[in-house]
Amino acid sequence: MNIVILGSGNIATHLGRAFKMAGQRIAQVWSRDLSHASALADTLAAEPIDNMFDLDRSADLYIIAVKDEAIRDIAFELKLNDQLLVHTSGSTPLTALEGASSKIGVFYPLQTFSKIKTVDFRQIPIIIEANVPEVLTSIRAIADRLSEKVVELNSEQRKALHVAAVFACNFTNHLFGLAQELLEEKGLDYELLKPLIKETLSKIEMNDPVSVQTGPAIREDQATIQAHLELLRDNPALSELYTKLSQSIVNLHKRSQG
Amino acid sequence: MNIVILGSGNIATHLGRAFKMAGQRIAQVWSRDLSHASALADTLAAEPIDNMFDLDRSADLYIIAVKDEAIRDIAFELKLNDQLLVHTSGSTPLTALEGASSKIGVFYPLQTFSKIKTVDFRQIPIIIEANVPEVLTSIRAIADRLSEKVVELNSEQRKALHVAAVFACNFTNHLFGLAQELLEEKGLDYELLKPLIKETLSKIEMNDPVSVQTGPAIREDQATIQAHLELLRDNPALSELYTKLSQSIVNLHKRSQG
Repeated sequence: MNIVILGSGNIATHLGRAFKMAGQRIAQVWSRDLSHASALADTLAAEPIDNMFDLDRSADLYIIAVKDEAIRDIAFELKLNDQLLVHTSGSTPLTALEGASSKIGVFYPLQTFSKIKTVDFRQIPIIIEANVPEVLTSIRAIADRLSEKVVELNSEQRKALHVAAVFACNFTNHLFGLAQELLEEKGLDYELLKPLIKETLSKIEMNDPVSVQTGPAIREDQATIQAHLELLRDNPALSELYTKLSQSIVNLHKRSQG
Repeated sequence: MNIVILGSGNIATHLGRAFKMAGQRIAQVWSRDLSHASALADTLAAEPIDNMFDLDRSADLYIIAVKDEAIRDIAFELKLNDQLLVHTSGSTPLTALEGASSKIGVFYPLQTFSKIKTVDFRQIPIIIEANVPEVLTSIRAIADRLSEKVVELNSEQRKALHVAAVFACNFTNHLFGLAQELLEEKGLDYELLKPLIKETLSKIEMNDPVSVQTGPAIREDQATIQAHLELLRDNPALSELYTKLSQSIVNLHKRSQG
């Protein structure tokens, strides 16, 4: 299979590698910035391009892996007819590709990608969608080569999954970052928190998060909450986050009881 | 060593078990509710009590493991003289015990405890503090029997560590709970998120959280952020959390750039 990748960021990089390792050929990598295209294309033995006039029109699959807001424009710049065209976005509806080809779909790997770290693609859920059943069959066959977990969802479900992923991944990572900053400001070693973080994750492998919630908020331990807000008094943004998240813990607990 | 535990909650339970496994004798477990005291005392071959008149005054160590706001009152109810007395709170200053004995200290295990799950105490940092060096030496010797990681911090540092732990543990667990609720509302399987959660944790084992932050906020991907807020439009509390956390990601990134 010949593949053209539009984009050169994290998702483009990890998908390119995964397809390459699965024995597929990456024909071209396109980016508006040729040096970005080259950086990725070189690692994939692909041709870097920055001009749509140079696009290989005979590929089997065109993968748009760019910022959400650029997807529609790039799809139309491709000027495809009936070639298979997918985007990789969690939150962009399939309809963003309507009119750009007769065979359109979504190929959304649900994972957090950094350029510095490789991931085992076999374990990554790939969420797929297509405009017609035959295209879905094609996309499923492609996804099956990369992952053991291929799931069809519609655009609205995929968006909900993406929002949940932002809470469970991006926001949690940020909380670790805030914790680290707080410790370093006090001259304390962030490593001290590592066993706690590990246990937090270990607990939810086997249990619902709501059932294993701990901390001052769920105990409604006002003395501790006040002591913490006192410590954060010079940091209004962090105090506000602390208060909002504590309230949210109490509210979720009530909803789960109701 | 003979130990009396005041309290019967998660910390009392896990500390009791850990001391027991380390070969110490738990003489008594006190709780205002005798059935709670009995439930824990029975597992530790200890005597349950609910009345301070029955307190064994010859123990080597008295551990107060109750809600923060009750620590001071219980310390004074004990009417000790020069017996070793500690509390186990992250956010309560050592001074809360002043006047309750001539030998006071803090013994704070930095971990998230649920009754349903056992933990390996050897890996848990124990934060200690004492009113005089000789007491610190005694407390350190006791802590060394349970954990490989014993750290002396003052009350203000310990409180900062506790706040950081609330962000890194309690709040992250809550975000997993919110993600689960969101998925279940849409009829989606929370299991889909597990590989993502695992990778999120795996990434920060070797990297600073700030350097591996991903997601729409750090990309300043307004199209995705707006799509997510649109999905959350019927849930003002969740929308607000989404907005505040996204803003906090941008702000932390700016601070880390200096």
